[in-house]
Amino acid sequence: MTALNERLVWRYATKAYDPTKSVPAETLDAILEAVRLAPTSSGLQPFELLVVTNPEIRARIREVSWDQAQVTDCSHLLVFAAWDDITPERVNMMFDLTNEVRGLKNEGWEAYRQKLLGIVAERGTEANFQAAARQTYIGLGAALIAAAFEEVDTTPMEGFDPNAVDEILGLKARHLRSVVMLPLGYRAAERDWLVNLKKVRRPREQFVSYVK
Amino acid sequence: MTALNERLVWRYATKAYDPTKSVPAETLDAILEAVRLAPTSSGLQPFELLVVTNPEIRARIREVSWDQAQVTDCSHLLVFAAWDDITPERVNMMFDLTNEVRGLKNEGWEAYRQKLLGIVAERGTEANFQAAARQTYIGLGAALIAAAFEEVDTTPMEGFDPNAVDEILGLKARHLRSVVMLPLGYRAAERDWLVNLKKVRRPREQFVSYVK
Repeated sequence: MTALNERLVWRYATKAYDPTKSVPAETLDAILEAVRLAPTSSGLQPFELLVVTNPEIRARIREVSWDQAQVTDCSHLLVFAAWDDITPERVNMMFDLTNEVRGLKNEGWEAYRQKLLGIVAERGTEANFQAAARQTYIGLGAALIAAAFEEVDTTPMEGFDPNAVDEILGLKARHLRSVVMLPLGYRAAERDWLVNLKKVRRPREQFVSYVK
Repeated sequence: MTALNERLVWRYATKAYDPTKSVPAETLDAILEAVRLAPTSSGLQPFELLVVTNPEIRARIREVSWDQAQVTDCSHLLVFAAWDDITPERVNMMFDLTNEVRGLKNEGWEAYRQKLLGIVAERGTEANFQAAARQTYIGLGAALIAAAFEEVDTTPMEGFDPNAVDEILGLKARHLRSVVMLPLGYRAAERDWLVNLKKVRRPREQFVSYVK
């Protein structure tokens, strides 16, 4: 088994965190960097990442997250918040940044910019948000794999009221919408009902098929 | 920099593949296994993975994918196809599998089954598909990171007509809908306009914020 797959076997959706253990700054940085480096459609990175440690804010988020203890007991709570729309300003911001970083103007790239501007204009706000939301899950995947490599536990979490979380974190004014959360920290194995249960995945032959 | 982040810096959306190079079976297996092991919401794994090598089928897919050469030139074309709905049968299949693998019946788990059955019934077909589609992007993230560790190049690809791909692969009858594709293979660096250009990502301070 590869090192990566060993880490994926090791990890699980942690149910109980040890609230006395904190993820070191350097380790947190490596996890955030994996999300930043993860690819996204057309390179837009159409989301932002919030790192929530404030105890009062976390208590309020827990109230709108089915009272899940991980929200308050974890070391750092990551909130993935997607762009509420893919606006021309946001598209141009990323295309301009690309020109700046690469120090060149490219005809094909500028034609692609116009094509993409047409696509997002036609698609409309809600579909653009849904497209952005999908991209955040690439970042989520990168975060939980990066964490597993650092022996940091995680709990991918959709079980919360996104509108309420947006309100608590003031996301609407930033034109963002919360999509998924990821508590980070260290398992309290003696209190975790899931830690010793077998991982369940469909057998390969029910999950993968070949068109040869 | 961590080993994972080094691999994320190494990878890029490959534009030109060497059609003479094939990903070894063992390497392909490791990548598919990473997708299978990746977590999903409520553990449903609401998607399937198709591995397309048939040249005629790939030529047809290329026609409905903006004529992108990676579709035919890559070693293996992965197609991520989400469940077209999250039906009671599919929810029960995963909950029953869980009971079978763990060899126990759990009261809390059975209560959660009923809660989830209620949620998907209320949400309806299209929203269930959208929820399933988001989960496939966790698998996509796992696949491209696993590939990068094996020094296999990838090109995450949304630029295709999903209905046409569904038709070509007969996905409708399997109650699946294509969401994203991932060519796998080895770069033809001398023909690839992107390989030597700088990777572009927003600076950390525009991407991450802290709620302390």
